[in-house]
Amino acid sequence: MVGGGKDAFIGAVHRIAARLDGDFDLVAGALSSTPEKARDSGAALGLDPDRCYGRFDDMAEAEAARPDGIEAVAIVTPNHVHAPAAAAFLERGIHVICDKPLTATMDQAADLESAIRASDALFILTHNYTGYPMIRQARTMVAAGDLGRVRIVQVEYAQDWLTEAAEQTGANKQAEWRTDPERSGAGGSIGDIGTHAHNLACFVTGLTVEKLSADLHSFVPGRRVDDNAHILLRLNDGARGMLWCSQVAPGNENGLRLRVYGDKGGLEWGQEDPNYLWFAPFGQPKRLLTRRGAGASEAANAVSRTPGGHPEGYLEGFANIYAGAARAIRAAQRGERAPDLDLLPGLDAGLAGMRFIDACIRSSRDNAAWVTL
Amino acid sequence: MVGGGKDAFIGAVHRIAARLDGDFDLVAGALSSTPEKARDSGAALGLDPDRCYGRFDDMAEAEAARPDGIEAVAIVTPNHVHAPAAAAFLERGIHVICDKPLTATMDQAADLESAIRASDALFILTHNYTGYPMIRQARTMVAAGDLGRVRIVQVEYAQDWLTEAAEQTGANKQAEWRTDPERSGAGGSIGDIGTHAHNLACFVTGLTVEKLSADLHSFVPGRRVDDNAHILLRLNDGARGMLWCSQVAPGNENGLRLRVYGDKGGLEWGQEDPNYLWFAPFGQPKRLLTRRGAGASEAANAVSRTPGGHPEGYLEGFANIYAGAARAIRAAQRGERAPDLDLLPGLDAGLAGMRFIDACIRSSRDNAAWVTL
Amino acid sequence: MVGGGKDAFIGAVHRIAARLDGDFDLVAGALSSTPEKARDSGAALGLDPDRCYGRFDDMAEAEAARPDGIEAVAIVTPNHVHAPAAAAFLERGIHVICDKPLTATMDQAADLESAIRASDALFILTHNYTGYPMIRQARTMVAAGDLGRVRIVQVEYAQDWLTEAAEQTGANKQAEWRTDPERSGAGGSIGDIGTHAHNLACFVTGLTVEKLSADLHSFVPGRRVDDNAHILLRLNDGARGMLWCSQVAPGNENGLRLRVYGDKGGLEWGQEDPNYLWFAPFGQPKRLLTRRGAGASEAANAVSRTPGGHPEGYLEGFANIYAGAARAIRAAQRGERAPDLDLLPGLDAGLAGMRFIDACIRSSRDNAAWVTL
Amino acid sequence: MVGGGKDAFIGAVHRIAARLDGDFDLVAGALSSTPEKARDSGAALGLDPDRCYGRFDDMAEAEAARPDGIEAVAIVTPNHVHAPAAAAFLERGIHVICDKPLTATMDQAADLESAIRASDALFILTHNYTGYPMIRQARTMVAAGDLGRVRIVQVEYAQDWLTEAAEQTGANKQAEWRTDPERSGAGGSIGDIGTHAHNLACFVTGLTVEKLSADLHSFVPGRRVDDNAHILLRLNDGARGMLWCSQVAPGNENGLRLRVYGDKGGLEWGQEDPNYLWFAPFGQPKRLLTRRGAGASEAANAVSRTPGGHPEGYLEGFANIYAGAARAIRAAQRGERAPDLDLLPGLDAGLAGMRFIDACIRSSRDNAAWVTL
Repeated sequence: MVGGGKDAFIGAVHRIAARLDGDFDLVAGALSSTPEKARDSGAALGLDPDRCYGRFDDMAEAEAARPDGIEAVAIVTPNHVHAPAAAAFLERGIHVICDKPLTATMDQAADLESAIRASDALFILTHNYTGYPMIRQARTMVAAGDLGRVRIVQVEYAQDWLTEAAEQTGANKQAEWRTDPERSGAGGSIGDIGTHAHNLACFVTGLTVEKLSADLHSFVPGRRVDDNAHILLRLNDGARGMLWCSQVAPGNENGLRLRVYGDKGGLEWGQEDPNYLWFAPFGQPKRLLTRRGAGASEAANAVSRTPGGHPEGYLEGFANIYAGAARAIRAAQRGERAPDLDLLPGLDAGLAGMRFIDACIRSSRDNAAWVTL
Repeated sequence: MVGGGKDAFIGAVHRIAARLDGDFDLVAGALSSTPEKARDSGAALGLDPDRCYGRFDDMAEAEAARPDGIEAVAIVTPNHVHAPAAAAFLERGIHVICDKPLTATMDQAADLESAIRASDALFILTHNYTGYPMIRQARTMVAAGDLGRVRIVQVEYAQDWLTEAAEQTGANKQAEWRTDPERSGAGGSIGDIGTHAHNLACFVTGLTVEKLSADLHSFVPGRRVDDNAHILLRLNDGARGMLWCSQVAPGNENGLRLRVYGDKGGLEWGQEDPNYLWFAPFGQPKRLLTRRGAGASEAANAVSRTPGGHPEGYLEGFANIYAGAARAIRAAQRGERAPDLDLLPGLDAGLAGMRFIDACIRSSRDNAAWVTL
Repeated sequence: MVGGGKDAFIGAVHRIAARLDGDFDLVAGALSSTPEKARDSGAALGLDPDRCYGRFDDMAEAEAARPDGIEAVAIVTPNHVHAPAAAAFLERGIHVICDKPLTATMDQAADLESAIRASDALFILTHNYTGYPMIRQARTMVAAGDLGRVRIVQVEYAQDWLTEAAEQTGANKQAEWRTDPERSGAGGSIGDIGTHAHNLACFVTGLTVEKLSADLHSFVPGRRVDDNAHILLRLNDGARGMLWCSQVAPGNENGLRLRVYGDKGGLEWGQEDPNYLWFAPFGQPKRLLTRRGAGASEAANAVSRTPGGHPEGYLEGFANIYAGAARAIRAAQRGERAPDLDLLPGLDAGLAGMRFIDACIRSSRDNAAWVTL
Repeated sequence: MVGGGKDAFIGAVHRIAARLDGDFDLVAGALSSTPEKARDSGAALGLDPDRCYGRFDDMAEAEAARPDGIEAVAIVTPNHVHAPAAAAFLERGIHVICDKPLTATMDQAADLESAIRASDALFILTHNYTGYPMIRQARTMVAAGDLGRVRIVQVEYAQDWLTEAAEQTGANKQAEWRTDPERSGAGGSIGDIGTHAHNLACFVTGLTVEKLSADLHSFVPGRRVDDNAHILLRLNDGARGMLWCSQVAPGNENGLRLRVYGDKGGLEWGQEDPNYLWFAPFGQPKRLLTRRGAGASEAANAVSRTPGGHPEGYLEGFANIYAGAARAIRAAQRGERAPDLDLLPGLDAGLAGMRFIDACIRSSRDNAAWVTL
């Protein structure tokens, strides 16, 4: 693992997700760019001190040289480190599982794209919300035509943790780097959570955003990146939509919600209650589909661990990405391609996300003019 | 009553709302522009045949001449009739309670404005959703600063009844006139329900929309007006927002929902569950405020009839407009001004709604360019 | 109207319910047993002073003698007055609409039964929750076999308004008479709300309670009647169930909830959100049926006024009893029987309720022994 | 692990729960009483074939003799095997984590009690629902007096998976052993899920059931144990309650719900939405407490892994029992007592559950007579 030392939020999530299905063991890390913190964090996790590295390139070099070196690495650093770190491992044939967004800048994205294309190793991007069983089900339902032709996509991702200037208190490392354009990229809320919303909408509908008009704003005085974004979407095949993301909407903890409407039916899903999926066939009563419930699909059941009514959550959804990565890695070891590889977000999703962020920023700077992706 | 004969939806609603608190008796009507239907509809309602008129101007003239003539008239016709019908009564000093939107066109709106300004009679516009107790409470909470400075306004009004081409079946009069620009005005969903959403957002926040960027669309082939609208809002005092209205979103019956976020808290309300109001003070647990419940305000209690847990609904909210109109009329009879008159939607709300519709259509024709209201 | 003067809660509800569909005009009343209050209350309601009576028997006599005397009377007094008041009108051929429970005591119930049987006039008991559209739908679904054979009935009615000793403050007339065995009867919560729960369960399932085991309790020191009841039910046809009613459950405003499970499916309904009915056919996804929605039945639509998504509430449900009473009275005037008369609660429901209360009290006094009804 | 081979449900749950926080490695097993299945199941889990045992006593003996033998064992067999299996390990000083209920019979319970008392090893019983963060919070709130004195406890556990005679199809191993009194014990639903409900109610309130009156029933023809139970409860300190459990309630997947009401407030929680806890202080608006949200307690945060809005579920709650067991084992290794040991269900909870099952069966056989525990 690269990144994920003390004070980090997402590193611990990756570790649990990797461990949950028993597919991965954590054996080495460059857990912090501060050597002492890297060492302490490694010790706290029970790592062999010899395999606690201060720099990711040292780690890549050393691990590649070991006979028992790592097969895969998780990169969970701030965004600006993704590209160089991933490249260091990819060029040595080590598979990479990387947090989103792809990188902090378009230039870094291009660099990383080159590194990925030049390597035989796999690159997986943890757009983890695609791992939820009911999201898998929603995707198959849309693909099967249960909604008819998709017309409308309403997606939103609302939080409230940046309602006040948390990054200016000196006590919130998360808030600091996520609002620092040098580390996070030019997008604030749009990069941190807007990309998840964009990715989820595309994953479920199978559509892509062709044009968008974005009104980004920073409500908190002194904030250096956007903390709220209102975006009009035009997708392919004539669909239209809206995307709202916000980090300043009090009462919203992690409110990622997706609604899709076609000419034959509608779907609604919310991340905070992920075991449910509403399906409204036009002209019939709404149905509440549940994970492993009576109306659950094969696609959902394939990534479920517990019976209906025994709720799975964020970590299980995240673990489904890791489990998919494990299947993909094992297949690659056999010289094969995992049958469900296309369900795993990777370079394409990452580039789409970067283009989305970039388009939003350009549109907003031009007063919400339409920008073609 | 003008309009509201057989096949009409909103006429029956007005009649119940007027009757619910015992303030009005229905004694005369021009219930249909078809004389026979006017007569039959009047008979079905038990009206004196002498007071069943075939034309609204006949009714205005005759009733004004009677010693026991009507004091107030409800106008519940298709939109293009609002202006001439209202004028006929206003110029004879008869108070007018008129369905929304104000008129079908901006020219008619100007005519009606003149008629209203020239008359001493009252003009009330039934933006009925402002009558819900928890909406009154939301308004007072925002005004009292419970949310701090308002930053974000997310409002939507989603229905599904026009998902298919109901207006082309010959069996749905409602769908026919509401999608006919001659009768409904140039706005489809935006005029029929978008104005309600716009009105509600402004009523609760006390803000006005300064600029908007609207992407209107007709998803149903052959439809002559918009059936879906995606709109970016810039309100005064720095607030921003989104408005979505749709008549083609399967699973949504009458989904008017409002969310308002300020720097100190958030509010959420949905019309289909109107007795509840979520209040999230930043940094504290969310509270579920209920009508006549522990946290209910004076403003809400003043327009409530039953104790908490005994749900009130659409008709009671609508009746609150009529009850307010009755208070206003009685005050006017005494030469006074009712203390709660400002809570009643009237000419100002009507004109704001017309400007909103007009701005949406102009923006959308110009590819969602910003239009200043 | 008999009863329903100032400070009364249910009188105002009856008046609105009677007026809502335009079937009844309030023209006379014995609104209070205190003459001055009777007069003042009548004046506040705009009654002719000559028709404001101090005593219900004066009213019955005088109204029966008038050529324009009342056709029907609503009795909304405390329970101990129901029997004599109803008898006074019934024996003069005036139809009676009476609040529940039937009477305060079993002896009074027997008296009233005699009076009802001796009269040609109608007797309607306002077990108003049977008037909700989705309850009508639930009843027809059970009768149609949608649930298969009914096995389990879980019904509850939870409130919190008597959590503290409100009857001892001197400021709550409602609490005073409803906890006074002389006026309310020997049942406290069981009589006031438990009967509603019992009635609703029987109305929907078509079953009757054969045996019960009741554990009544007064949690508030000094309270003279039960404020909580836990009851085991054995119904006919092998069904079993539970009934819980409480007035001391903080957070419950008016929580009447019914769940019915058969061998083919289940139904769930809650009074505070009355426009919804959950239907779970075994082995299929749950469906959310809505009033006037896609899955609404004729039985529900027949007692609905507004389209789906335009919520109806407590007053509309109550008004459905009055509207049914009006149809029954008009049919009686023609010498006919209204086709939906069996849906209206009357003597049978009232006696069943009294036997239920009596059985609960006897069972509880015998330490929750089984009592056969 | 003893039990948990192919076709088992709860074995896989235990394995994930044990692994989730990285505290346990699975290295040995007697996964099935069928040797071939034991071997195959072990292989599927990657166990060393030498440590795949056909019989639990072989396993206990062999592992106790190995220098790298297991420190703890999970027993996830049908109930009748719990006692002998646990004893085999306990007498060799190996810690036991055992599925509930304690045993199939009271005699077995006495045997197991002796074994536990004779051993220095720990015995943990996976009443896993006590591991949910919001349940921990509910317990601390009750203990802190936030509800005042507890008056009413309403607990229920409703499922529908045995609505039909699944045990008679030959295709459902779970249904077979869970309805077989030889393997499951005399209690059906009451033993399988009723004990969870009983345990949860006691865990949260700190109260014990003193008397109960139980009406057990088998609705499915030919079923050998109860599939539904209606129970009246009298708890200590004057509280009263109801417990309903059912496996034949269509539409209920895993509906464990607890409501507790005191003289100052109420709490409501449901297992299917475990990240929420409703708190209603009497006379104030209801508050929705969320895991790691603004109102979350230390007790809840101590067993949470992800931020608010990132839902945790059944596996995380279950894992909290394992994490607690790990802390207890480590403390024991240091000769200490883990500070949170009292939060872990063990022998006392197990015996209370057995007495509860036994009392229910005795009461029901005596026509729901009161039985003192």
